[in-house]
Amino acid sequence: VQAGDDLAALIADAVHDLRDGDVLVVAQKVVSKSEGRTRRLADVQPGARAQELASEHAKDARLVQIVLEETAELLRAHHGVLICETHQGLVCANAGVDMSNMSGPDVALLLPEDPDGSARRLRAGLRELTGARIGVVISDSFGRAWRLGLTDVAIGAAGIDPVEDWRGRADAHGRELQATEVALADELAAAADLARTKDSQEPVVLIRGMERAVTEHDGPGASALQRPRDLDLFR
Amino acid sequence: VQAGDDLAALIADAVHDLRDGDVLVVAQKVVSKSEGRTRRLADVQPGARAQELASEHAKDARLVQIVLEETAELLRAHHGVLICETHQGLVCANAGVDMSNMSGPDVALLLPEDPDGSARRLRAGLRELTGARIGVVISDSFGRAWRLGLTDVAIGAAGIDPVEDWRGRADAHGRELQATEVALADELAAAADLARTKDSQEPVVLIRGMERAVTEHDGPGASALQRPRDLDLFR
Repeated sequence: VQAGDDLAALIADAVHDLRDGDVLVVAQKVVSKSEGRTRRLADVQPGARAQELASEHAKDARLVQIVLEETAELLRAHHGVLICETHQGLVCANAGVDMSNMSGPDVALLLPEDPDGSARRLRAGLRELTGARIGVVISDSFGRAWRLGLTDVAIGAAGIDPVEDWRGRADAHGRELQATEVALADELAAAADLARTKDSQEPVVLIRGMERAVTEHDGPGASALQRPRDLDLFR
Repeated sequence: VQAGDDLAALIADAVHDLRDGDVLVVAQKVVSKSEGRTRRLADVQPGARAQELASEHAKDARLVQIVLEETAELLRAHHGVLICETHQGLVCANAGVDMSNMSGPDVALLLPEDPDGSARRLRAGLRELTGARIGVVISDSFGRAWRLGLTDVAIGAAGIDPVEDWRGRADAHGRELQATEVALADELAAAADLARTKDSQEPVVLIRGMERAVTEHDGPGASALQRPRDLDLFR
Protein backbone atom coordinates (compact mmCIF):
# COMPACT_ATOMS: atom_id res chain seq x y z
CA VAL A 1 0.00 0.00 0.00
CA GLN A 2 1.37 3.36 -1.05
CA ALA A 3 0.46 6.98 -0.35
CA GLY A 4 -2.56 7.96 -2.41
CA ASP A 5 -3.81 4.40 -2.90
CA ASP A 6 -7.57 3.97 -2.78
CA LEU A 7 -7.77 1.63 0.19
CA ALA A 8 -11.52 1.00 -0.20
CA ALA A 9 -10.95 -0.15 -3.78
CA LEU A 10 -8.04 -2.40 -2.77
CA ILE A 11 -10.17 -3.97 -0.03
CA ALA A 12 -13.22 -4.36 -2.28
CA ASP A 13 -11.01 -6.22 -4.77
CA ALA A 14 -9.59 -8.51 -2.09
CA VAL A 15 -12.66 -9.30 0.01
CA HIS A 16 -15.28 -11.30 -1.82
CA ASP A 17 -18.91 -11.54 -0.81
CA LEU A 18 -19.03 -8.63 1.64
CA ARG A 19 -22.43 -8.70 3.35
CA ASP A 20 -24.59 -6.36 5.40
CA GLY A 21 -23.59 -6.70 9.04
CA ASP A 22 -19.98 -7.72 8.35
CA VAL A 23 -17.19 -6.00 10.26
CA LEU A 24 -13.86 -5.23 8.61
CA VAL A 25 -10.95 -4.68 10.95
CA VAL A 26 -8.23 -2.77 9.11
CA ALA A 27 -4.69 -2.41 10.44
CA GLN A 28 -3.64 1.17 11.13
CA LYS A 29 -0.46 0.66 9.11
CA VAL A 30 -2.20 0.43 5.74
CA VAL A 31 -4.54 3.30 6.58
CA SER A 32 -1.60 5.51 7.53
CA LYS A 33 0.38 4.45 4.45
CA SER A 34 -2.50 5.16 2.09
CA GLU A 35 -2.90 8.58 3.71
CA GLY A 36 0.81 9.35 3.33
CA ARG A 37 1.31 9.65 7.08
CA THR A 38 5.08 9.12 6.89
CA ARG A 39 8.07 11.18 7.94
CA ARG A 40 11.62 10.71 6.70
CA LEU A 41 14.10 10.95 9.55
CA ALA A 42 16.46 12.85 7.24
CA ASP A 43 13.92 15.68 7.03
CA VAL A 44 13.64 16.14 10.81
CA GLN A 45 15.53 18.72 12.90
CA PRO A 46 15.36 17.63 16.54
CA GLY A 47 14.73 20.43 19.04
CA ALA A 48 16.31 20.79 22.47
CA ARG A 49 13.65 18.72 24.30
CA ALA A 50 13.93 15.89 21.76
CA GLN A 51 17.72 15.88 22.06
CA GLU A 52 17.50 15.79 25.84
CA LEU A 53 14.98 12.91 25.88
CA ALA A 54 16.90 11.04 23.19
CA SER A 55 20.11 11.26 25.16
CA GLU A 56 18.38 10.17 28.41
CA HIS A 57 16.68 7.22 26.75
CA ALA A 58 19.26 6.18 24.11
CA LYS A 59 16.91 6.93 21.25
CA ASP A 60 17.28 8.63 17.87
CA ALA A 61 16.67 12.36 18.50
CA ARG A 62 14.94 12.74 15.14
CA LEU A 63 12.50 9.96 16.01
CA VAL A 64 11.86 11.54 19.42
CA GLN A 65 11.20 14.85 17.68
CA ILE A 66 8.55 13.18 15.51
CA VAL A 67 7.01 11.57 18.60
CA LEU A 68 6.88 14.92 20.40
CA GLU A 69 5.21 16.57 17.41
CA GLU A 70 2.50 13.89 17.56
CA THR A 71 2.09 14.32 21.33
CA ALA A 72 -0.41 16.48 23.23
CA GLU A 73 0.92 15.41 26.65
CA LEU A 74 3.90 13.30 27.59
CA LEU A 75 2.64 11.19 30.54
CA ARG A 76 5.77 9.20 31.37
CA ALA A 77 9.31 8.82 30.05
CA HIS A 78 11.01 5.84 31.63
CA HIS A 79 13.64 3.34 30.53
CA GLY A 80 13.33 4.31 26.89
CA VAL A 81 9.54 4.19 26.83
CA LEU A 82 7.64 7.40 26.12
CA ILE A 83 3.97 7.13 27.10
CA CYS A 84 2.12 9.86 25.25
CA GLU A 85 -1.36 11.19 24.80
CA THR A 86 -1.52 11.94 21.09
CA HIS A 87 -3.32 14.87 19.48
CA GLN A 88 -6.03 12.33 18.61
CA GLY A 89 -6.52 11.66 22.36
CA LEU A 90 -4.98 8.17 22.32
CA VAL A 91 -2.64 7.13 25.15
CA CYS A 92 0.11 4.85 23.86
CA ALA A 93 3.85 4.31 23.60
CA ASN A 94 5.79 6.67 21.32
CA ALA A 95 2.57 8.41 20.23
CA GLY A 96 1.93 5.48 17.92
CA VAL A 97 4.95 6.33 15.75
CA ASP A 98 6.29 3.14 14.21
CA MET A 99 9.51 2.25 12.42
CA SER A 100 8.68 -1.37 11.54
CA ASN A 101 7.01 -2.79 8.45
CA MET A 102 8.09 0.25 6.42
CA SER A 103 9.79 0.14 3.06
CA GLY A 104 12.84 2.18 4.03
CA PRO A 105 15.07 2.24 7.09
CA ASP A 106 14.63 5.97 7.65
CA VAL A 107 10.87 6.31 7.41
CA ALA A 108 8.54 6.61 10.40
CA LEU A 109 4.85 5.86 10.12
CA LEU A 110 2.43 8.06 12.08
CA LEU A 111 -1.13 7.39 13.20
CA PRO A 112 -3.89 8.67 10.89
CA GLU A 113 -4.67 12.30 11.69
CA ASP A 114 -8.34 11.48 12.29
CA PRO A 115 -8.80 7.70 12.57
CA ASP A 116 -12.60 7.93 12.95
CA GLY A 117 -12.70 10.04 9.80
CA SER A 118 -10.54 7.44 8.03
CA ALA A 119 -12.99 4.74 9.13
CA ARG A 120 -15.97 6.74 7.89
CA ARG A 121 -14.34 7.28 4.49
CA LEU A 122 -13.47 3.58 4.18
CA ARG A 123 -17.01 2.60 5.13
CA ALA A 124 -18.56 4.99 2.63
CA GLY A 125 -16.17 3.85 -0.10
CA LEU A 126 -16.92 0.18 0.53
CA ARG A 127 -20.66 0.89 0.64
CA GLU A 128 -20.39 2.54 -2.76
CA LEU A 129 -18.25 -0.22 -4.26
CA THR A 130 -20.03 -3.26 -2.80
CA GLY A 131 -23.45 -2.05 -1.64
CA ALA A 132 -22.86 -3.66 1.76
CA ARG A 133 -23.67 -1.87 5.00
CA ILE A 134 -20.69 -2.91 7.09
CA GLY A 135 -18.86 -1.73 10.18
CA VAL A 136 -15.22 -0.62 9.96
CA VAL A 137 -12.67 -0.75 12.78
CA ILE A 138 -9.14 0.61 12.43
CA SER A 139 -6.87 -1.26 14.83
CA ASP A 140 -3.47 -0.73 16.40
CA SER A 141 -1.49 -2.61 19.07
CA PHE A 142 -1.31 -0.80 22.41
CA GLY A 143 0.22 -1.65 25.76
CA ARG A 144 -1.66 -1.51 29.05
CA ALA A 145 -0.82 0.13 32.37
CA TRP A 146 -0.89 -3.04 34.49
CA ARG A 147 -0.56 -5.88 32.04
CA LEU A 148 2.31 -7.03 29.88
CA GLY A 149 2.05 -7.55 26.15
CA LEU A 150 0.05 -5.67 23.58
CA THR A 151 -3.54 -6.12 22.51
CA ASP A 152 -5.15 -4.61 19.45
CA VAL A 153 -7.62 -1.82 20.16
CA ALA A 154 -9.89 0.29 17.97
CA ILE A 155 -8.30 3.64 17.21
CA GLY A 156 -11.00 4.42 14.64
CA ALA A 157 -14.47 3.08 13.90
CA ALA A 158 -17.54 3.76 11.77
CA GLY A 159 -20.86 1.96 11.68
CA ILE A 160 -19.99 0.23 14.96
CA ASP A 161 -21.45 0.56 18.43
CA PRO A 162 -18.15 1.22 20.21
CA VAL A 163 -19.70 0.41 23.59
CA GLU A 164 -22.43 -2.13 24.33
CA ASP A 165 -24.23 -0.68 27.31
CA TRP A 166 -25.87 -3.15 29.68
CA ARG A 167 -26.26 -0.73 32.58
CA GLY A 168 -29.71 -0.82 34.09
CA ARG A 169 -30.54 -4.09 32.35
CA ALA A 170 -31.25 -7.14 34.45
CA ASP A 171 -29.23 -10.31 34.83
CA ALA A 172 -30.76 -13.79 34.68
CA HIS A 173 -31.96 -13.40 38.28
CA GLY A 174 -33.60 -10.02 37.74
CA ARG A 175 -30.78 -8.12 39.46
CA GLU A 176 -29.39 -5.01 37.85
CA LEU A 177 -26.12 -5.76 36.06
CA GLN A 178 -23.04 -3.98 37.38
CA ALA A 179 -20.26 -2.30 35.46
CA THR A 180 -21.29 -3.64 32.13
CA GLU A 181 -20.24 -1.27 29.42
CA VAL A 182 -18.49 -3.59 27.02
CA ALA A 183 -15.84 -1.99 24.80
CA LEU A 184 -17.10 -3.88 21.75
CA ALA A 185 -14.91 -2.07 19.21
CA ASP A 186 -11.78 -2.94 21.19
CA GLU A 187 -12.85 -6.59 21.51
CA LEU A 188 -13.44 -6.72 17.74
CA ALA A 189 -9.92 -5.39 17.18
CA ALA A 190 -8.47 -7.95 19.61
CA ALA A 191 -10.39 -10.82 18.01
CA ALA A 192 -9.15 -9.82 14.55
CA ASP A 193 -5.55 -9.82 15.76
CA LEU A 194 -5.87 -13.54 16.55
CA ALA A 195 -6.70 -14.29 12.92
CA ARG A 196 -3.31 -13.18 11.63
CA THR A 197 0.30 -13.17 12.71
CA LYS A 198 2.62 -10.17 12.84
CA ASP A 199 4.47 -11.32 9.70
CA SER A 200 1.48 -12.50 7.69
CA GLN A 201 0.95 -9.24 5.75
CA GLU A 202 -2.81 -9.53 6.18
CA PRO A 203 -3.95 -6.00 6.97
CA VAL A 204 -7.68 -6.68 6.83
CA VAL A 205 -9.70 -9.20 8.83
CA LEU A 206 -13.37 -9.92 8.13
CA ILE A 207 -15.55 -10.68 11.17
CA ARG A 208 -18.91 -12.24 10.40
CA GLY A 209 -21.68 -12.84 12.94
CA MET A 210 -21.37 -9.56 14.87
CA GLU A 211 -24.41 -7.91 13.27
CA ARG A 212 -25.46 -6.70 16.71
CA ALA A 213 -22.46 -4.33 16.72
CA VAL A 214 -23.12 -2.85 13.28
CA THR A 215 -25.21 0.31 13.07
CA GLU A 216 -27.09 2.14 10.34
CA HIS A 217 -25.21 5.39 10.92
CA ASP A 218 -21.49 5.99 11.34
CA GLY A 219 -21.99 6.66 15.05
CA PRO A 220 -19.56 8.24 17.53
CA GLY A 221 -16.49 6.31 16.43
CA ALA A 222 -13.69 4.88 18.53
CA SER A 223 -12.99 8.26 20.10
CA ALA A 224 -15.99 7.46 22.33
CA LEU A 225 -13.72 4.88 23.99
CA GLN A 226 -11.17 7.47 25.06
CA ARG A 227 -11.41 8.08 28.80
CA PRO A 228 -11.88 11.81 29.43
CA ARG A 229 -9.08 13.40 31.44
CA ASP A 230 -11.38 14.16 34.39
CA LEU A 231 -12.19 10.44 34.68
CA ASP A 232 -8.52 9.44 34.39
CA LEU A 233 -7.18 8.39 37.81
CA PHE A 234 -3.73 7.43 36.53
CA ARG A 235 -2.26 10.43 34.75
CA VAL B 1 -23.35 -23.87 38.94
CA GLN B 2 -23.10 -24.45 42.69
CA ALA B 3 -20.25 -24.74 45.16
CA GLY B 4 -18.67 -28.16 44.87
CA ASP B 5 -19.87 -28.81 41.32
CA ASP B 6 -17.39 -30.60 39.05
CA LEU B 7 -16.99 -27.89 36.43
CA ALA B 8 -14.90 -30.08 34.12
CA ALA B 9 -17.67 -32.70 34.08
CA LEU B 10 -20.35 -30.06 33.42
CA ILE B 11 -18.32 -28.65 30.53
CA ALA B 12 -17.49 -32.08 29.09
CA ASP B 13 -21.24 -32.84 29.07
CA ALA B 14 -22.09 -29.55 27.36
CA VAL B 15 -19.30 -29.27 24.78
CA HIS B 16 -19.40 -31.94 22.13
CA ASP B 17 -16.49 -32.92 19.93
CA LEU B 18 -13.70 -31.25 21.90
CA ARG B 19 -10.50 -31.54 19.83
CA ASP B 20 -6.78 -31.19 20.37
CA GLY B 21 -5.86 -27.54 19.92
CA ASP B 22 -9.23 -26.15 20.97
CA VAL B 23 -9.35 -23.30 23.45
CA LEU B 24 -12.10 -23.07 26.07
CA VAL B 25 -12.69 -19.64 27.55
CA VAL B 26 -14.52 -20.04 30.85
CA ALA B 27 -16.15 -17.12 32.67
CA GLN B 28 -14.69 -16.42 36.11
CA LYS B 29 -18.18 -16.45 37.63
CA VAL B 30 -18.74 -20.17 37.17
CA VAL B 31 -15.22 -21.00 38.29
CA SER B 32 -15.67 -18.96 41.45
CA LYS B 33 -19.12 -20.42 42.10
CA SER B 34 -17.92 -23.98 41.69
CA GLU B 35 -15.09 -23.21 44.10
CA GLY B 36 -17.47 -21.73 46.66
CA ARG B 37 -15.81 -18.33 46.50
CA THR B 38 -18.80 -16.47 47.93
CA ARG B 39 -19.29 -14.30 50.99
CA ARG B 40 -22.64 -13.46 52.58
CA LEU B 41 -22.83 -9.79 53.48
CA ALA B 42 -24.65 -10.73 56.71
CA ASP B 43 -21.52 -12.58 57.87
CA VAL B 44 -19.19 -9.57 57.44
CA GLN B 45 -18.13 -7.16 60.18
CA PRO B 46 -16.77 -4.02 58.52
CA GLY B 47 -13.64 -2.57 60.11
CA ALA B 48 -12.84 1.12 60.57
CA ARG B 49 -11.14 1.53 57.17
CA ALA B 50 -14.07 -0.12 55.37
CA GLN B 51 -16.56 2.10 57.20
CA GLU B 52 -14.56 5.19 56.31
CA LEU B 53 -14.29 4.28 52.61
CA ALA B 54 -17.93 3.21 52.47
CA SER B 55 -19.07 6.52 53.89
CA GLU B 56 -16.80 8.51 51.52
CA HIS B 57 -17.98 6.57 48.48
CA ALA B 58 -21.62 5.80 49.37
CA LYS B 59 -21.02 2.06 49.36
CA ASP B 60 -22.08 -0.81 51.60
CA ALA B 61 -19.43 -1.04 54.32
CA ARG B 62 -19.69 -4.85 54.41
CA LEU B 63 -19.01 -5.01 50.68
CA VAL B 64 -16.04 -2.65 51.08
CA GLN B 65 -14.74 -4.87 53.87
CA ILE B 66 -14.84 -7.87 51.54
CA VAL B 67 -13.05 -5.84 48.84
CA LEU B 68 -10.33 -4.79 51.30
CA GLU B 69 -9.82 -8.38 52.41
CA GLU B 70 -9.23 -9.33 48.74
CA THR B 71 -6.85 -6.40 48.22
CA ALA B 72 -3.06 -6.34 48.49
CA GLU B 73 -2.83 -2.62 47.61
CA LEU B 74 -5.53 -0.02 47.12
CA LEU B 75 -4.27 2.07 44.17
CA ARG B 76 -7.06 4.63 43.90
CA ALA B 77 -10.38 5.39 45.56
CA HIS B 78 -12.33 7.94 43.58
CA HIS B 79 -16.01 8.65 42.97
CA GLY B 80 -17.10 5.29 44.31
CA VAL B 81 -14.53 3.31 42.35
CA LEU B 82 -11.89 1.36 44.25
CA ILE B 83 -8.99 0.32 42.02
CA CYS B 84 -7.20 -2.52 43.76
CA GLU B 85 -4.33 -4.86 43.24
CA THR B 86 -5.67 -8.19 44.47
CA HIS B 87 -3.71 -10.83 46.36
CA GLN B 88 -3.59 -12.66 43.00
CA GLY B 89 -1.71 -9.65 41.52
CA LEU B 90 -4.59 -8.46 39.32
CA VAL B 91 -5.35 -4.73 39.08
CA CYS B 92 -9.08 -4.13 38.75
CA ALA B 93 -12.11 -2.37 40.21
CA ASN B 94 -13.37 -3.58 43.59
CA ALA B 95 -10.78 -6.37 43.67
CA GLY B 96 -13.00 -8.30 41.27
CA VAL B 97 -15.73 -8.70 43.91
CA ASP B 98 -19.08 -8.93 42.13
CA MET B 99 -22.70 -8.69 43.31
CA SER B 100 -24.40 -9.41 39.98
CA ASN B 101 -25.49 -12.74 38.51
CA MET B 102 -25.68 -14.26 41.99
CA SER B 103 -28.59 -16.23 43.37
CA GLY B 104 -29.20 -14.08 46.43
CA PRO B 105 -29.21 -10.33 47.03
CA ASP B 106 -26.69 -10.53 49.88
CA VAL B 107 -24.03 -12.71 48.35
CA ALA B 108 -20.76 -11.40 46.90
CA LEU B 109 -18.71 -13.46 44.47
CA LEU B 110 -14.91 -13.32 44.79
CA LEU B 111 -12.21 -14.13 42.24
CA PRO B 112 -10.79 -17.66 42.38
CA GLU B 113 -7.98 -17.79 44.92
CA ASP B 114 -5.52 -19.08 42.30
CA PRO B 115 -7.01 -18.64 38.82
CA ASP B 116 -4.05 -20.30 37.06
CA GLY B 117 -4.46 -23.28 39.38
CA SER B 118 -8.19 -23.35 38.57
CA ALA B 119 -7.33 -23.37 34.85
CA ARG B 120 -4.82 -26.19 35.31
CA ARG B 121 -7.36 -28.31 37.19
CA LEU B 122 -10.03 -27.68 34.54
CA ARG B 123 -7.60 -28.59 31.78
CA ALA B 124 -6.53 -31.80 33.50
CA GLY B 125 -10.14 -32.73 34.20
CA LEU B 126 -11.18 -32.15 30.61
CA ARG B 127 -8.15 -34.06 29.34
CA GLU B 128 -9.17 -37.00 31.49
CA LEU B 129 -12.84 -36.85 30.49
CA THR B 130 -12.43 -36.16 26.76
CA GLY B 131 -8.85 -37.08 25.89
CA ALA B 132 -8.40 -33.71 24.18
CA ARG B 133 -5.30 -31.59 24.70
CA ILE B 134 -6.89 -28.15 24.91
CA GLY B 135 -6.04 -24.72 26.26
CA VAL B 136 -8.11 -23.17 29.05
CA VAL B 137 -8.56 -19.46 29.70
CA ILE B 138 -10.50 -18.09 32.66
CA SER B 139 -11.85 -14.66 31.76
CA ASP B 140 -13.18 -11.65 33.61
CA SER B 141 -14.20 -8.14 32.51
CA PHE B 142 -11.73 -5.43 33.53
CA GLY B 143 -11.58 -1.69 32.94
CA ARG B 144 -8.56 0.12 31.54
CA ALA B 145 -6.65 3.17 32.75
CA TRP B 146 -7.18 5.30 29.64
CA ARG B 147 -10.10 3.74 27.84
CA LEU B 148 -13.76 3.51 28.68
CA GLY B 149 -15.72 0.28 28.79
CA LEU B 150 -14.62 -3.15 29.87
CA THR B 151 -12.88 -5.86 27.90
CA ASP B 152 -12.50 -9.46 28.94
CA VAL B 153 -8.98 -10.46 29.94
CA ALA B 154 -7.39 -13.73 31.01
CA ILE B 155 -7.15 -13.96 34.79
CA GLY B 156 -6.14 -17.62 34.55
CA ALA B 157 -4.76 -19.87 31.84
CA ALA B 158 -3.34 -23.34 31.30
CA GLY B 159 -1.98 -24.91 28.14
CA ILE B 160 -1.88 -21.49 26.51
CA ASP B 161 1.03 -19.34 25.42
CA PRO B 162 -0.03 -16.21 27.28
CA VAL B 163 2.33 -14.04 25.21
CA GLU B 164 3.27 -14.52 21.57
CA ASP B 165 6.77 -13.09 21.35
CA TRP B 166 7.82 -11.62 18.00
CA ARG B 167 10.78 -9.64 19.36
CA GLY B 168 13.89 -10.14 17.31
CA ARG B 169 11.95 -11.65 14.43
CA ALA B 170 11.92 -9.89 11.08
CA ASP B 171 9.06 -8.14 9.33
CA ALA B 172 8.26 -8.65 5.64
CA HIS B 173 11.10 -6.28 4.70
CA GLY B 174 13.69 -8.00 6.86
CA ARG B 175 13.59 -5.31 9.55
CA GLU B 176 13.42 -6.30 13.17
CA LEU B 177 9.86 -6.04 14.50
CA GLN B 178 9.28 -3.55 17.31
CA ALA B 179 7.24 -3.93 20.46
CA THR B 180 5.59 -7.13 19.42
CA GLU B 181 4.73 -9.16 22.44
CA VAL B 182 1.12 -10.03 21.78
CA ALA B 183 -1.01 -10.74 24.87
CA LEU B 184 -2.62 -13.76 23.20
CA ALA B 185 -4.48 -14.99 26.28
CA ASP B 186 -6.14 -11.60 26.74
CA GLU B 187 -7.11 -11.44 23.07
CA LEU B 188 -8.63 -14.93 23.35
CA ALA B 189 -10.69 -13.74 26.32
CA ALA B 190 -11.82 -10.63 24.42
CA ALA B 191 -12.75 -12.63 21.32
CA ALA B 192 -14.81 -15.06 23.42
CA ASP B 193 -16.73 -12.18 25.00
CA LEU B 194 -18.03 -11.23 21.52
CA ALA B 195 -19.62 -14.65 21.14
CA ARG B 196 -22.07 -14.15 24.01
CA THR B 197 -24.04 -11.35 25.61
CA LYS B 198 -24.07 -10.40 29.27
CA ASP B 199 -27.51 -11.95 29.80
CA SER B 200 -27.02 -15.08 27.70
CA GLN B 201 -25.93 -17.38 30.55
CA GLU B 202 -23.24 -18.92 28.35
CA PRO B 203 -20.24 -19.27 30.64
CA VAL B 204 -18.04 -21.22 28.24
CA VAL B 205 -16.94 -20.27 24.72
CA LEU B 206 -15.09 -22.66 22.42
CA ILE B 207 -12.46 -21.12 20.14
CA ARG B 208 -11.29 -23.32 17.30
CA GLY B 209 -8.42 -22.51 14.95
CA MET B 210 -5.98 -21.12 17.53
CA GLU B 211 -3.81 -24.23 17.71
CA ARG B 212 -0.73 -22.00 17.59
CA ALA B 213 -1.61 -20.73 21.09
CA VAL B 214 -2.09 -24.17 22.64
CA THR B 215 0.90 -25.79 24.32
CA GLU B 216 1.80 -29.29 25.44
CA HIS B 217 2.44 -28.22 29.03
CA ASP B 218 0.35 -26.02 31.30
CA GLY B 219 2.88 -23.20 30.93
CA PRO B 220 3.24 -20.05 33.03
CA GLY B 221 -0.46 -19.17 33.11
CA ALA B 222 -2.09 -15.76 32.91
CA SER B 223 -0.06 -14.47 35.84
CA ALA B 224 2.74 -14.04 33.27
CA LEU B 225 0.65 -11.14 31.89
CA GLN B 226 0.74 -9.23 35.18
CA ARG B 227 3.08 -6.26 34.89
CA PRO B 228 5.66 -6.41 37.69
CA ARG B 229 5.51 -3.46 40.08
CA ASP B 230 8.96 -2.24 39.03
CA LEU B 231 7.75 -1.95 35.42
CA ASP B 232 4.53 -0.19 36.45
CA LEU B 233 4.74 3.52 35.61
CA PHE B 234 1.21 4.31 36.74
CA ARG B 235 0.82 3.17 40.31
